[in-house]
Amino acid sequence: MAKPMSKQINAAIYGATGYGGIELIRILSQHPNVTIKQVISRSEDGQKVADIYQNARDVGELVFTAPDKVNWDGIDVCFFATPHTVAMSHVAELLSKGIKVIDLSADFRLQDVPTWEKWYNTSHSETELLKEAVYGLPELNRQQIKNARLIACPGCYPTSVILGLMPLLTNNLVDESTIIADVKSGVSGAGRSGKIDMLFAERTENFSAYASGGHRHYPEIKAQLEGLAQRSLDFIFMPHLLPMTRGIHATIYAKLKAPSDVQSLYEQTYANEPFVDVMASGQHPQTKSVRGTNMARIAIANPPDSDYVTILVVEDNLTKGASGQAVQCMNLLFDLPETSGLTTIALA
Amino acid sequence: MAKPMSKQINAAIYGATGYGGIELIRILSQHPNVTIKQVISRSEDGQKVADIYQNARDVGELVFTAPDKVNWDGIDVCFFATPHTVAMSHVAELLSKGIKVIDLSADFRLQDVPTWEKWYNTSHSETELLKEAVYGLPELNRQQIKNARLIACPGCYPTSVILGLMPLLTNNLVDESTIIADVKSGVSGAGRSGKIDMLFAERTENFSAYASGGHRHYPEIKAQLEGLAQRSLDFIFMPHLLPMTRGIHATIYAKLKAPSDVQSLYEQTYANEPFVDVMASGQHPQTKSVRGTNMARIAIANPPDSDYVTILVVEDNLTKGASGQAVQCMNLLFDLPETSGLTTIALA
Amino acid sequence: MAKPMSKQINAAIYGATGYGGIELIRILSQHPNVTIKQVISRSEDGQKVADIYQNARDVGELVFTAPDKVNWDGIDVCFFATPHTVAMSHVAELLSKGIKVIDLSADFRLQDVPTWEKWYNTSHSETELLKEAVYGLPELNRQQIKNARLIACPGCYPTSVILGLMPLLTNNLVDESTIIADVKSGVSGAGRSGKIDMLFAERTENFSAYASGGHRHYPEIKAQLEGLAQRSLDFIFMPHLLPMTRGIHATIYAKLKAPSDVQSLYEQTYANEPFVDVMASGQHPQTKSVRGTNMARIAIANPPDSDYVTILVVEDNLTKGASGQAVQCMNLLFDLPETSGLTTIALA
Amino acid sequence: MAKPMSKQINAAIYGATGYGGIELIRILSQHPNVTIKQVISRSEDGQKVADIYQNARDVGELVFTAPDKVNWDGIDVCFFATPHTVAMSHVAELLSKGIKVIDLSADFRLQDVPTWEKWYNTSHSETELLKEAVYGLPELNRQQIKNARLIACPGCYPTSVILGLMPLLTNNLVDESTIIADVKSGVSGAGRSGKIDMLFAERTENFSAYASGGHRHYPEIKAQLEGLAQRSLDFIFMPHLLPMTRGIHATIYAKLKAPSDVQSLYEQTYANEPFVDVMASGQHPQTKSVRGTNMARIAIANPPDSDYVTILVVEDNLTKGASGQAVQCMNLLFDLPETSGLTTIALA
Repeated sequence: MAKPMSKQINAAIYGATGYGGIELIRILSQHPNVTIKQVISRSEDGQKVADIYQNARDVGELVFTAPDKVNWDGIDVCFFATPHTVAMSHVAELLSKGIKVIDLSADFRLQDVPTWEKWYNTSHSETELLKEAVYGLPELNRQQIKNARLIACPGCYPTSVILGLMPLLTNNLVDESTIIADVKSGVSGAGRSGKIDMLFAERTENFSAYASGGHRHYPEIKAQLEGLAQRSLDFIFMPHLLPMTRGIHATIYAKLKAPSDVQSLYEQTYANEPFVDVMASGQHPQTKSVRGTNMARIAIANPPDSDYVTILVVEDNLTKGASGQAVQCMNLLFDLPETSGLTTIALA
Repeated sequence: MAKPMSKQINAAIYGATGYGGIELIRILSQHPNVTIKQVISRSEDGQKVADIYQNARDVGELVFTAPDKVNWDGIDVCFFATPHTVAMSHVAELLSKGIKVIDLSADFRLQDVPTWEKWYNTSHSETELLKEAVYGLPELNRQQIKNARLIACPGCYPTSVILGLMPLLTNNLVDESTIIADVKSGVSGAGRSGKIDMLFAERTENFSAYASGGHRHYPEIKAQLEGLAQRSLDFIFMPHLLPMTRGIHATIYAKLKAPSDVQSLYEQTYANEPFVDVMASGQHPQTKSVRGTNMARIAIANPPDSDYVTILVVEDNLTKGASGQAVQCMNLLFDLPETSGLTTIALA
Repeated sequence: MAKPMSKQINAAIYGATGYGGIELIRILSQHPNVTIKQVISRSEDGQKVADIYQNARDVGELVFTAPDKVNWDGIDVCFFATPHTVAMSHVAELLSKGIKVIDLSADFRLQDVPTWEKWYNTSHSETELLKEAVYGLPELNRQQIKNARLIACPGCYPTSVILGLMPLLTNNLVDESTIIADVKSGVSGAGRSGKIDMLFAERTENFSAYASGGHRHYPEIKAQLEGLAQRSLDFIFMPHLLPMTRGIHATIYAKLKAPSDVQSLYEQTYANEPFVDVMASGQHPQTKSVRGTNMARIAIANPPDSDYVTILVVEDNLTKGASGQAVQCMNLLFDLPETSGLTTIALA
Repeated sequence: MAKPMSKQINAAIYGATGYGGIELIRILSQHPNVTIKQVISRSEDGQKVADIYQNARDVGELVFTAPDKVNWDGIDVCFFATPHTVAMSHVAELLSKGIKVIDLSADFRLQDVPTWEKWYNTSHSETELLKEAVYGLPELNRQQIKNARLIACPGCYPTSVILGLMPLLTNNLVDESTIIADVKSGVSGAGRSGKIDMLFAERTENFSAYASGGHRHYPEIKAQLEGLAQRSLDFIFMPHLLPMTRGIHATIYAKLKAPSDVQSLYEQTYANEPFVDVMASGQHPQTKSVRGTNMARIAIANPPDSDYVTILVVEDNLTKGASGQAVQCMNLLFDLPETSGLTTIALA
């Protein structure tokens, strides 16, 4: 589609070889206001993106550049789709050049340094920037995102759980000692590295829980939920691995303090959100319906004979759970329409 | 394998065209003490089983017979793998001939007639036999099964949830108002009929909850759990559909009344059960590890910062959740070793 | 994305409930020059498209209309994504209203009436229109498509086989008695009806040939290949069913009359085609790389010690093999840029 | 099942961590005449098999031993399920101890040393043993296998192609310059190592050819087919990768020299073979129907208007294509019934 004359943004993508990186390339290459100027990878320096991802043959000629060879002139924004600790070591320099940073990694997601250092098992080198970083969930922090220099995009699991619980917690409707998030994810969340556990032959026709003793997204979700509830809370987060590539389904349970019209509350809360779709009562969101889109779809279920409410949330872990949300944040940051470049519909 | 000279049982299978039926054929055709004498189907009368299921080419020549043409002479046991209400209309006659009945359908699973009639939306024609029927979960009712004439095999979901909760409930360890069973099933549970929702193109790379307003296995689980707890209880049962064929994973949550060594309790409870495998703490059972086997594998998880316990249970919905369990019951009924014909190992 | 002020086309889709129909809705709803005015279905009259396809929740409010209730005023083009014989009975009336017709069904694909009637086992009611119909493969008939009133879009298999063989046949390079097309298709080609053979449980982890005695696409391919070769020819077309939803992979074999630089020939033939991508020698096109896109990707392979050439072709059977190609034809018909609305990139 | 008193064989498995190795463990652990005495792995010394393959929890307590710690006393047979060159360096020593060797790797499959060295790109250290080795395809070499010390089991692809062509070639019915084997394999053929190309996210909903320039099974198939035809021949072998774990489907094309009753020929040729099932004309073998079994299922197809014959062959690449066939050879070698331990039926 022809790109209009209006505002043009030059983007760099650091860590473009992973599933989050190629998803950013897919979205940004079709964004009417963005030009991808740099795709950065130390290991793939000089190689074409299309040689790793055959779909990228249709993007145009993108070639990886090693970090130390990047020309930053004219770059407006840099996305990090890297393992943790990479963004941390580059952000200060980029900010000093006036480049906005949107970090899809975990480096700036937790405000509490000891918690970060415990769960990521290394020291944090940018604790001042940590204070400045804005948690990039537009439905929660739209105004702060618009004014940020450094955005820490939420993890894929946290996005689904926070969107699913936000109306209940901000309205103080549930017994916080009863919250359980039973969450199921496609395998692309595990990244694109040669792990035997993620081989086709290991995952197809297979399902299991994992990390039941504690997942790195647990403290992130906990911190955000406590912010919403404005008190500390314990809850259970149990991740599972689905035999499919993309998609997260969060099934969230909580005991209501009193009978409440949860359906109306959710419809009102998200009425103006372009990327949250509240379904009618009795419907069941399907992960496939948001595959490759930036939409989170939510339904409220009322289990029989129970004073619990159940919230069903689906999203694509690589889109609303990562790269699509990052672009949504970029749109806010550069005062573009929030949905620019994010209007794809899922394949049926 | 050569069948030893010992006891020989002649079996009939009513409803042999569905996934439960062909699974019975698979297991019984390799059972050292069983000869399949009749496979019964009204719609497929005269057709070879192998024309419907290509794998059955390796079983030998089995041909469907219509119900009214069946020769019952010498039949020792009849399995029903039929939609509900079929077994109900034949059981009395078979029992009168001295034939044992193992019913894999829902007809005799609920003792309370009004509850059955409400959930199955029709009247029950054999309420006296209902009282006699034994719920065919050997881990719960081994002795009664041995002496039964009519066995009502549990549903696939109930098997996983009851095995997962039995030690906690019989020992009165959990707050019964907090029990949640978040259960995920392969699509074979939906049966072998031409439902658009179950097409490959609809289910692959897709995941969703279903029947959130109430599933027919809910009253069955509730009745059994209440029997274990010896009081009434409310709980949540939320089924989901996995993009795979076979396997159930139950993730069960409950708040402990007090700290307790749940791991040891489960190991002790199931120490002598041939088909319940309690894994070490921190492990995660995989559905694939029990595919086509009669095993239920259980692990206990301890979520961080929580007074809940989490129980993970996997089984094959068609084997331990249906036909394998039916054969386990048959072994008990005919005083064979409980594991006869059920020692298969899953494909890796 | 905002639709520019330029030319606007009003479209109707007849048969919008199948996989081809929802794919048309997906593409046209994002096309900058198209408004979907009518989605037509007899069986679903009054129902929302989003109630059948959850992804259509993000399209806007589309509601099915029964054929006899359709208001044709202002409609520029009508697509038929219907079973055969439906388009045939409506085309004359629509053409008389000045509405262009793009038929994705088989009704106008074969010029020879007896052949059509033999393979579709019914009589053809519009033999005059058959003569007028243009076979809608732009790489073959671009000029005729621009001037057509009635376009017969190729079947999914024919598109892949014809594109794969066109350069060889038009240049008379192969022994025509040696052509073999071994073709593998995703299951969406079988349509969205409740066939037991197409259940998830039947197709996953399964692969087989089908219709080895003769598939309806055989005479269509044969007619087109004979047109290219300008002589009659026999060849083998063997379809197979893949355990996946979308994608066709044609592996085509033919004996070269003499050594020839086939690679250069294909590169030159398709140099200016926006939707044919000729890969470098030694590469292997992946169906996933064109999932949901209108691209056909081709590679030439040279088997060791052989005077055969092998052509590998991939396409998405629902996009370049059906609805995308139909929109490509529409673009030509209405003098729009040929790639309008068709620039999506596949998910990695 | 109880193991009868008869002959007992003590087996060692070298390379038990791969998919071929665990498949051997699965089959041998249920074989009535075999005890697995050693499972050998350098990298996993001291680890339980069940810690790598959860299904092995149901086998009993098997622990890996490093090669140099193995006690060979009383071992009757050693299977190698190792990468090429491993078996080669151990066979002489084992034979000298009187231990039979069944090699599932490529080390002894090719009689021609230069060909072996070219395709495996290293020198062969046991060229004398190469002469002695018997190619372990029972349908071809039953008598030689019974008397062998060293058996070289065929590759998975060769098994399917050779069984598919044997009757045609030994009866000199086809034009040998027209033979094409278009073969599709599940991904388990690629082994259990952390290759990015074999990740679930890369293979699901994807299909492609590979190794079109020459696959290592090509010279093996060529050598065997030339042996059958008793002349040299060129043919095409084109492998493809299916989005599933287990199963090979070979679609084989060849031009008949004259019209011939191929169906009867195949039925007669394989009438007494326990593991070759010739289907009726017009049927299509499904890979799923032989999943986990040692059966090869074959159907003859007659393409319309063609003087070619098409042969469809399915097998499980890990069973009849590897470990099942190895056990079939073992049964012959030790004068057991050929089907012992190999009578499993596939899951429907």
